[in-house]
Amino acid sequence: MTIYTAPIRDMRFIMEELCGLDEIASLPGLEEATPDVVGAVLEEAAKVAGEVLAPINQQGDVQGSVWSDGKVTTPDGWKDAYATFIAGGWNGAVNEPEWGGMGLPWLVNAAVQEMIHSANMAFALCPMLTQGAIEAITLNGSEELKQRFLPKMVSGEWTGTMNLTEPQAGSDLSAVRSRAERADGHYLISGQKIFITYGDHDLTDNIIHLVLARCPDAPPGVKGISLFVVPKFILDDNGAPGELNDVQCVSIEHKLGIHGSPTAVLSFGDKGGAVGYLVGEENRGLEYMFVMMNLERLVVGIQGLGISERAYQQAVSYARERVQGQPVGTKGERLPIIHHPNIRRKLLAMRAEIEAMRAVAFAAARASDLYDRHPDAAVQAFNKARLELLTPIVKGWCTERSVELTSIGVQVHGGMGYIEETGASQHFRDARITPIYEGTTAIQANDLVGRKIIRDKGQTVRALLDEMRGLESALASNRDDQASAAALSAALMAGIADASSVVDWLLDAAGRDQRLPLVAANYVLLLFGTLIGGHEMARAALAAGRRLAAGEGDPAFLTAKITTARYYAEHVMPRIAGFTRAIIDGSATVLALDTELL
Amino acid sequence: MTIYTAPIRDMRFIMEELCGLDEIASLPGLEEATPDVVGAVLEEAAKVAGEVLAPINQQGDVQGSVWSDGKVTTPDGWKDAYATFIAGGWNGAVNEPEWGGMGLPWLVNAAVQEMIHSANMAFALCPMLTQGAIEAITLNGSEELKQRFLPKMVSGEWTGTMNLTEPQAGSDLSAVRSRAERADGHYLISGQKIFITYGDHDLTDNIIHLVLARCPDAPPGVKGISLFVVPKFILDDNGAPGELNDVQCVSIEHKLGIHGSPTAVLSFGDKGGAVGYLVGEENRGLEYMFVMMNLERLVVGIQGLGISERAYQQAVSYARERVQGQPVGTKGERLPIIHHPNIRRKLLAMRAEIEAMRAVAFAAARASDLYDRHPDAAVQAFNKARLELLTPIVKGWCTERSVELTSIGVQVHGGMGYIEETGASQHFRDARITPIYEGTTAIQANDLVGRKIIRDKGQTVRALLDEMRGLESALASNRDDQASAAALSAALMAGIADASSVVDWLLDAAGRDQRLPLVAANYVLLLFGTLIGGHEMARAALAAGRRLAAGEGDPAFLTAKITTARYYAEHVMPRIAGFTRAIIDGSATVLALDTELL
Repeated sequence: MTIYTAPIRDMRFIMEELCGLDEIASLPGLEEATPDVVGAVLEEAAKVAGEVLAPINQQGDVQGSVWSDGKVTTPDGWKDAYATFIAGGWNGAVNEPEWGGMGLPWLVNAAVQEMIHSANMAFALCPMLTQGAIEAITLNGSEELKQRFLPKMVSGEWTGTMNLTEPQAGSDLSAVRSRAERADGHYLISGQKIFITYGDHDLTDNIIHLVLARCPDAPPGVKGISLFVVPKFILDDNGAPGELNDVQCVSIEHKLGIHGSPTAVLSFGDKGGAVGYLVGEENRGLEYMFVMMNLERLVVGIQGLGISERAYQQAVSYARERVQGQPVGTKGERLPIIHHPNIRRKLLAMRAEIEAMRAVAFAAARASDLYDRHPDAAVQAFNKARLELLTPIVKGWCTERSVELTSIGVQVHGGMGYIEETGASQHFRDARITPIYEGTTAIQANDLVGRKIIRDKGQTVRALLDEMRGLESALASNRDDQASAAALSAALMAGIADASSVVDWLLDAAGRDQRLPLVAANYVLLLFGTLIGGHEMARAALAAGRRLAAGEGDPAFLTAKITTARYYAEHVMPRIAGFTRAIIDGSATVLALDTELL
Repeated sequence: MTIYTAPIRDMRFIMEELCGLDEIASLPGLEEATPDVVGAVLEEAAKVAGEVLAPINQQGDVQGSVWSDGKVTTPDGWKDAYATFIAGGWNGAVNEPEWGGMGLPWLVNAAVQEMIHSANMAFALCPMLTQGAIEAITLNGSEELKQRFLPKMVSGEWTGTMNLTEPQAGSDLSAVRSRAERADGHYLISGQKIFITYGDHDLTDNIIHLVLARCPDAPPGVKGISLFVVPKFILDDNGAPGELNDVQCVSIEHKLGIHGSPTAVLSFGDKGGAVGYLVGEENRGLEYMFVMMNLERLVVGIQGLGISERAYQQAVSYARERVQGQPVGTKGERLPIIHHPNIRRKLLAMRAEIEAMRAVAFAAARASDLYDRHPDAAVQAFNKARLELLTPIVKGWCTERSVELTSIGVQVHGGMGYIEETGASQHFRDARITPIYEGTTAIQANDLVGRKIIRDKGQTVRALLDEMRGLESALASNRDDQASAAALSAALMAGIADASSVVDWLLDAAGRDQRLPLVAANYVLLLFGTLIGGHEMARAALAAGRRLAAGEGDPAFLTAKITTARYYAEHVMPRIAGFTRAIIDGSATVLALDTELL
């Protein structure tokens, strides 16, 4: 069993110094998020994560959720952990108090989500999917649907699922074939759905499926798909789970990781049709789903961050304990491997990227709060655009990096990293799903390049680049650590210039051959993630410098922030030039090779 | 079950156009490797790989080798496959005919090794370790040891193991504690060894363990370790397996991948001491082991190449079959995903790096043949130094890249890549061990930087850089595809200049702080792998251009070589600048952060 300790101090530093927690907490409806309340929430969430969820993580992996005779049993201890989790109100951390939620700012919820995904990613998927279903009903459901389902879903008494994928409809949902026949006051749903996270389980006495399906006379393609609420047990007149609906869990998948999370194949309508209730209007299902999915994508990005942090903690802990060799530069003693220069670099590499990922993810959460709550419509609009820009970046970049960072975590353990009992490889296996589900990195990248950059002719992204350029003068006037400030400034300004040429190239290339931006899209996403991360790291270094100069805070902690930012500037930011060259010089070459020759 | 087809045409192109197969085949002792013989060998090896080993790869993963009551049972079908494998003579492909080997050039053996590791990496580890044991006995064993053990080991009737690691002695073998007491004509060995690949199995009727242990009066540290041959069954007077030796397989490990390969914990001497025979002289065991280990390292590098090729073939095959979405630039039909620009880029990314890895690995094999066989001592010495330089690069770079390339293979499959039945994730799991065993990447990198670059003040590596610079004029005079030639030349010359500054920096930094080169070492290794790979790709493009101009060969195949090389120059080579900046600007920063703050 490996330990997880929530990095509250690092989280608070970002929330307070970079994300203006004060400002967020003073938004209408969030006034209760005082510093004391936020502090207490983080401490309590850390306890649940560290004491309830983390200890059952490895056993959950070994045992896995098991399907038998149409029913799924979760690993030992998960039912109790779930009961504790919902008793603390964590299931509805971000939901409106009207429905029983805590009403936390997204900024604070981002930290809570990071903790629970660090602690036990396979477990945390269950409330994550419930949250998606809650969003879908909240945003578009009728008042009746809300009244019947939301209170129990917000409390966590019932969980939710998202039924999108079918064997022939993965990234391309236009190919959905499940059917919905109109009936008396409801619809009858039939079809097969795959990859349904927590599609069946034994944690609660009902499961509320959100299902995409087509009405008989619906137009083909994306504009003929509707969204339905299909409870596992149909509610009786008292709103309690009654008769079993016509939906069966046919099997669950044998996956590389997240073994505790049952990934179900669900069959709807084998006995004539499952009772379903339309959400919103017919044929607008995909539109509703995408609104909801943006929040899920943000959380999956945070999941990439969380699993990386967990792998980092485990690697540091092993490196402090494992004695091997006599590190160069020491007095010839056998010492723990953390004293070997290459291990130091590896751990700092993990730490620096994790801090950057956290800062960008939290910045997106901040934008979400400002968009949701700020009284000024212009501020709302600005933050809506910012959130839409950051969402695919957080999802794609944090998850892609999590595969690499958890791999470094394995490597730090040497041979022991490859032995499953150690636990390092679980994080590596778990992380590998994150760039795939809720839209692959390519889907995120196409969204970023097509909808967020090219569609508005680069306006939103150029505003962000201008904002980042503003840091140059602050860095230039930093007198406390000029070498670090110069390194940060040079890396940041070079990165901004490269990003700017990439935006120019995208707009031009799109006019020449629509395929070119799509060849380049993954790089563009990684470039912007790396760059925005670097901007946040430079801001962190400046904030730490200010506090040091003012004689506030823990000097060691603050100095480490500056060193970590400098590491990021020197080791991570140079990747931007590589992406830029590949994009501008190399995109056409990809299309030059006939696919037959691959 | 996924299919493997050996890429014989690509292999031959490298052997013939880049590695001078003619020249190698004319070396003393290799005259029988005529083009016809090599062709037949490759075809036969491809059959064994594709028809015997590949089909049992996935089942081997699912079932795994199983330990019960002190004995290991390999997966269904492995015993038969092993019998077929050794009946074909493949176990001794590279060994001297004197001992029953095929006596193939290493250059040809490199291709054979790639095939069997592509087909079934967990299986191929068994002959790989046997080969290591054969080398150790061949190079340093007495005539008597050779006569007793080599014929059966070369034929594969008996397998071999390497017993190095102990719980406290992993990367640092100076900490080995196993003991060897002198007895009458032999030694009595006791101690516990871990991570022993094929330490027990049911494929053969004897297993010949090579074991590191200390004699009672041996000096401490690396200079007090001796090497012993410890057969599982002591040979009787007829040289047949007789009495069971005092060695037990206590358990096998539960690993992330290579499930078919049993990784044993072996206990020697529980009943008084296992009978062992000294190899060479006392206290020189580590020295002997490292000579042998260099060849193993080369093969592990080829393993990284092989598993990447397998993942690539599977990804291409899936991408041709899986229909999803309407690719941009097509007529709005639903088409296989290979037509999506981002999938084309991913597949080309895999292909280009695999071709570069293959060319560098085969170049090392060529150097091995020239070192072993060339009549001119100066040519031998040059190739010895070249082989020593390339070995850690092939091992470290090909294996590190295999983790990334097999990960791309998973990603191409989307959600199906995460489902174990698909097989893509097995390659990802299998690949993950390769940067760890036979010396982690950090061990390779330290060897490269310390022994191969700094020790001779950069002489060997500078000779290689000069040789690479020689390609500039050839590229400049290429008139057939000037755009490609210019791209290749620019990338190569920039890379050489960066590498040259890195060598200068290493020599200088080593004088200032010995830890600095070790901070930078992994980057230096990846930089040289990337650069030497780029040089080979540029040579391949020139060779393809020459054949095209001469109207020889398949134009599509040759044009693809040029496009792939250009992709590599534009997409892969820019990483070199990033490594260079991190090394030169950022190494000191790593040491600036106190380990307590990690």
